[in-house]
Amino acid sequence: MKPLESLALRWDGERLWALDQTRLPDTEIWVEGSDPGVMAGLILRLAVRGAPLIGVAAALSFSAFLKTQPTAVALREAWETLRGARPTAVNLAWAMDRLWAAWQRDGQEAVTREAVAIFEEDVALCEAMARHGLTLFGAAEAVLTHCNSGGLATVGVGTALGVIHRAWEAGKITHVFVDETRPLLQGARLTAWELGRRGIAHTLLTDSMAAILLREGRVQRVLVGSDRVAANGDFANKVGTYGLAVQAQYHGVPFHPVAPWSTVDLACASGREIPIEHRPPEEVRGFAERRWAPAGSEVFNPSFDVTPVALVTSLVLDRGVFTREQLTAGALSQVAVRRRVIE
Amino acid sequence: MKPLESLALRWDGERLWALDQTRLPDTEIWVEGSDPGVMAGLILRLAVRGAPLIGVAAALSFSAFLKTQPTAVALREAWETLRGARPTAVNLAWAMDRLWAAWQRDGQEAVTREAVAIFEEDVALCEAMARHGLTLFGAAEAVLTHCNSGGLATVGVGTALGVIHRAWEAGKITHVFVDETRPLLQGARLTAWELGRRGIAHTLLTDSMAAILLREGRVQRVLVGSDRVAANGDFANKVGTYGLAVQAQYHGVPFHPVAPWSTVDLACASGREIPIEHRPPEEVRGFAERRWAPAGSEVFNPSFDVTPVALVTSLVLDRGVFTREQLTAGALSQVAVRRRVIE
Repeated sequence: MKPLESLALRWDGERLWALDQTRLPDTEIWVEGSDPGVMAGLILRLAVRGAPLIGVAAALSFSAFLKTQPTAVALREAWETLRGARPTAVNLAWAMDRLWAAWQRDGQEAVTREAVAIFEEDVALCEAMARHGLTLFGAAEAVLTHCNSGGLATVGVGTALGVIHRAWEAGKITHVFVDETRPLLQGARLTAWELGRRGIAHTLLTDSMAAILLREGRVQRVLVGSDRVAANGDFANKVGTYGLAVQAQYHGVPFHPVAPWSTVDLACASGREIPIEHRPPEEVRGFAERRWAPAGSEVFNPSFDVTPVALVTSLVLDRGVFTREQLTAGALSQVAVRRRVIE
Repeated sequence: MKPLESLALRWDGERLWALDQTRLPDTEIWVEGSDPGVMAGLILRLAVRGAPLIGVAAALSFSAFLKTQPTAVALREAWETLRGARPTAVNLAWAMDRLWAAWQRDGQEAVTREAVAIFEEDVALCEAMARHGLTLFGAAEAVLTHCNSGGLATVGVGTALGVIHRAWEAGKITHVFVDETRPLLQGARLTAWELGRRGIAHTLLTDSMAAILLREGRVQRVLVGSDRVAANGDFANKVGTYGLAVQAQYHGVPFHPVAPWSTVDLACASGREIPIEHRPPEEVRGFAERRWAPAGSEVFNPSFDVTPVALVTSLVLDRGVFTREQLTAGALSQVAVRRRVIE
């Protein structure tokens, strides 16, 4: 097997290393995650994060463990530890289920092939999103993004940040403005680091400053990731996305979520049915070990918000770009029907 | 002279103490600022902040110094040190000029009387704003505010936060939502502390979460301070105010700046003429001693933004409430003309 490498994951055919994202941007520390127990710990403490990345990392860790010729009991235990490391990440359970089926069917070699396939599929999905996303651009533009949806969340170029990366290479983007993305600061810590590493011109701002750039005509397009897309085109993403969408529409700036098809959840008819996780108050009262707000103050801390399709100019999926009109007319359900017929 | 006391200033008729605002909300430390050199240092390092508060603190410090019977040279030096401690604060120079005139005219007793008068005028201005602001409310409401415009920025109840305080007492407000106000976190550090101390029910959120509350109908009114109001009703305030005004209008929620008349700058015909201070990149790359963004990333860090009068429901001044229609029709210039005739 040829080695695999992404911005946050390295596999030499035997052993696996992951970039510790909790140490970014100050320090780039690679930690070995060949052992399933260690990898599950890395996922738990957010050293390895981003739904697609987690799925691939767990799959390669399981494959590496198999080569140590563990007992059947130890193998099943490792599989369960990895599969349960992040219950909300759908990709993780899906990847581990694929691996177990391969193991039952064809043994060790098949598991490694399956893990490599999952890695390569993620890379290809990112490139497909980037290819479709590229068609949005006419003349070169400055764009704005929120949170991190790049090579630190996937093993490819990313979703929204993948479009930005490829559009930058194609000379379609001149500058990237990055919301810091309070409270967990994924924009300041991860996206700014990733853009800097790729040599992409960028500027960091607090979330509250985006409106000024939109008003002054300094941003021509907004691109964001998505954690779940409802059947009608409403979508959930990192908190702050909805407010940004309102700002973009007010200033007449096109606004696009970018996501793989696996993010589309047709079981949710609209955004109202997407459950929103609320996180601990400490995240808003400070950052990491630093506290600056009174401990007695009540806190509002939803991790995501829902943007209605009315504020979406178009949705970029790996299988094409869907306009607001198409989404509203039920295009996502039609794609699903067509897909079921083909498969 | 009877002693004076505010949330952040104490004067016993002789000596003066100030609350060190850089230590809030963790620690309430009062530092003596009777010595003009010490007081100037407190102002420089933002331990004493807020334009009205600075003016009063400097005036009382100068008055205390006079009682030590300094030489003429030392007195003039102290006066200049205080007057120059914060060049952008118009109130400071104005207060110190009033004190010098009193000294020249009537000596030490007159200076103390003048300093006390400046204190009492600020209290009265706050109450006048609160009185007019109270007329905005019908049934009890939940409100949202940004930054700090309260008893830590004035010696009275404050501007926007003063209206909120008095409306809470009158049973017109049920809950206050507080934007944390990145990058300097005045909402999280100061407003949350102040509301907690006054026993006002409140919830802290990141700036990017306000849109959710507005959408869900959980906020019925937005009240903010102002650093400068142009002749046409456009106004500058802490960065993030403009985006909040756009959100409020999109969701049909009334939006009100609150300010004393001294904030109105008729020399600025519109907001386009208000100069915007840009501050150091370190403020966005982290907070205080903590850094989390790459040092190499460029930063956008305007300290203020300008909200056009089109997004203002009405402006609350100490001399009345002015609707958007009145402001657009030139009401502020007319008040100024009337005022000059009376004076």
